[in-house]
Amino acid sequence: MEIVELADLGQKLFDDIRTLSSDGVGVTRDSYGEGETATADYLTRFAETEGLRVDVDRAANLIFGLPDSDPNVPAVWVGSHMDSVPQGGNFDGLAGIIAGLLCLVSQKRSNEPSTTPLRVIAFRGEESAWFGKAYMGSGAAFGKLSPQDLALKHRSTGKSLASYMQNVGADTDAISAGEVLFDKAKAKAYLELHIEQGPIMVARKIPLAVVPGIRGNVRHNRITCVGEAGHSGAVPRWLRHDAMFAVADLITRLDEHWRVLLERGIDLVVTAGVVGTDPAEHSISRIPGAVNFSFEARSKSRDTLEGFYQLMRSECASIERERGVRFEFDRRLESAPATMDDSLCDALAQSCKRHGIDFEAVPSGAGHDASLFANAGIPSSMLFIRNENGSHNPHEAMDIDDFMLGVMVLADTIKHL
Amino acid sequence: MEIVELADLGQKLFDDIRTLSSDGVGVTRDSYGEGETATADYLTRFAETEGLRVDVDRAANLIFGLPDSDPNVPAVWVGSHMDSVPQGGNFDGLAGIIAGLLCLVSQKRSNEPSTTPLRVIAFRGEESAWFGKAYMGSGAAFGKLSPQDLALKHRSTGKSLASYMQNVGADTDAISAGEVLFDKAKAKAYLELHIEQGPIMVARKIPLAVVPGIRGNVRHNRITCVGEAGHSGAVPRWLRHDAMFAVADLITRLDEHWRVLLERGIDLVVTAGVVGTDPAEHSISRIPGAVNFSFEARSKSRDTLEGFYQLMRSECASIERERGVRFEFDRRLESAPATMDDSLCDALAQSCKRHGIDFEAVPSGAGHDASLFANAGIPSSMLFIRNENGSHNPHEAMDIDDFMLGVMVLADTIKHL
Repeated sequence: MEIVELADLGQKLFDDIRTLSSDGVGVTRDSYGEGETATADYLTRFAETEGLRVDVDRAANLIFGLPDSDPNVPAVWVGSHMDSVPQGGNFDGLAGIIAGLLCLVSQKRSNEPSTTPLRVIAFRGEESAWFGKAYMGSGAAFGKLSPQDLALKHRSTGKSLASYMQNVGADTDAISAGEVLFDKAKAKAYLELHIEQGPIMVARKIPLAVVPGIRGNVRHNRITCVGEAGHSGAVPRWLRHDAMFAVADLITRLDEHWRVLLERGIDLVVTAGVVGTDPAEHSISRIPGAVNFSFEARSKSRDTLEGFYQLMRSECASIERERGVRFEFDRRLESAPATMDDSLCDALAQSCKRHGIDFEAVPSGAGHDASLFANAGIPSSMLFIRNENGSHNPHEAMDIDDFMLGVMVLADTIKHL
Repeated sequence: MEIVELADLGQKLFDDIRTLSSDGVGVTRDSYGEGETATADYLTRFAETEGLRVDVDRAANLIFGLPDSDPNVPAVWVGSHMDSVPQGGNFDGLAGIIAGLLCLVSQKRSNEPSTTPLRVIAFRGEESAWFGKAYMGSGAAFGKLSPQDLALKHRSTGKSLASYMQNVGADTDAISAGEVLFDKAKAKAYLELHIEQGPIMVARKIPLAVVPGIRGNVRHNRITCVGEAGHSGAVPRWLRHDAMFAVADLITRLDEHWRVLLERGIDLVVTAGVVGTDPAEHSISRIPGAVNFSFEARSKSRDTLEGFYQLMRSECASIERERGVRFEFDRRLESAPATMDDSLCDALAQSCKRHGIDFEAVPSGAGHDASLFANAGIPSSMLFIRNENGSHNPHEAMDIDDFMLGVMVLADTIKHL
């Protein structure tokens, strides 16, 4: 059978999972929560219906394979994540899992297993939106979650990541001890198909892209600027310690540094995604005594990340002196930049060429589970699918035809490994 | 009897009301809500115990007087407000009511009514923290609340101001129709004692101040900056429409204009008390698609208010062009600046001098119910009491001795009217 014949099946999987995780605005598949678990249950039932084997690893990630493939032969792993941000889009993460499953279904239905066995891994907990940390599922598999990480609190319930992971059956003792749960010897390669989350491919009119590398990041989930509350009408400017004016000053300074660094050709993006005065005490007529905000910088270069981080800290120190405020930092979090494997990238590129598909090399601005495989020494690569309106919002728009081109290239690449 | 003998009674009233409205951090006496009503009930019981007459006006404000005073003789009114901001301090508003009540108790116990009858009015709903509008209680009395004002929503329940006012028995039909509920012919003067909400009197070591005027303000409870949400790692700077960077830019520009205007000797304070990304969709890895914020400028000058407001609007327009965002404004709210009556101010000053009390003229940066009396043509003045740590926070610190000096001056001034 030709894999493109599975387009309708792919569409059905996307539609069904969109429906089961709809929140009325977009989809909400909360990490280790209801929406993600409903997706995991659906995928498990689907795979069993197709006669595939379904395992759950000790980090509660799902692993799909052909029922009679030898577990001792190093496999090619295809994966991505099941979770989404709140009110997110349907394709971020899910596309990579469905792509892998369609490859498996194709091998099963046609009874033509690839020479290198195919395993599909559906990660839980990739999005940082829920616990303030990304790659929890793949991080757990590679022994990269610390006890501090496991103590992180859920954005709305305040319960720990550990308690959420235990609820879905993860072995948090092993994870907390940093045990490596994934046997690298059983992985010949890792491939991840993902929608592009930026605007480049739409602008360049290319349906597929091969990803040569992934940006890393440095973050604080919460920095608190502590000033002094006061009556908005009665404290003159020179006696104010307005936490909001201080944070606005900081953001404006960082924006200016960013602009200058870009002019020097440096790869960098900077975001303060969560900013707010304290709802328990703020009011129109009160000078904000405290403002909480998140900080994130991303770059392909470790040096840029470190340099920009230190610049941010020194601007905070400068604003502290000028405005009589204080910045308090929670734990600094980092994800390392990752380089994709040249020969795997080349294999994807060759497959695109064989099928006459326009493609380019597009580095990934967003992080992916693939980073953890690459940084664990497993040859890894990624394939981007054209997608409009970015991701992390309900308006993601991936064309199913573009997606099937990606599935075709993926299946073809696996066949040649 | 000497009025200073009532110091212990004053202290007890402050302590009891602090206890009944405590929220664990400060006091919460929500406008037209539980905390304010508990305070009103307590004051009513206290006044009745003292043999005072208690009336409730059609806006649900309390009016206290001597039981046998002639209602047709124009009176001197002493008042302030019962409500507080969330987690506020105990003295803002309450001090003026207790001061008035001590004057009444003194007249009653000594059986020496003032020549000009004394009425004490305890306003509800002065703080804008709850419905985004200040002077609701005194505004209702003077026919200044519009149907739009009555439709304003409570900060946490979302229910209308009208429904809250009805719950405490206010005649919202008359209020909505703009009926003037307060008979100006029955008011010879209005006096308000209030803690200073700024740091000036502590710095100058003066226990009392006479207030020559009150700053007005112009406000938006909510301006929304609408940008475009996107993945924080995947959208480069030149394709971003980051609502938070835009708001930070605006605040920084306003701060700079403010600094320059102060150098020209212009009276102005500027505050963004409530700022936040949308908790329903924000995350560390998402470019904020929308940010809500409040805007407030205060000045003694109407022209400065109008000029700075227009400057703010033109900076918004400039940022819209530069950053591809959009600012959406809710209704513009205004409170007029107010000038206090010269001869009343002089009467307060003469009383201070008679008692050998250090005082200065200190204009009010904050608004007060007194503004409405002054702008209605009733001769009005205010007396400030020294207070540390500003107001609208739990750390207000007024010394009871300073307060009693104020009560003495107030009682003395009333006697000479």
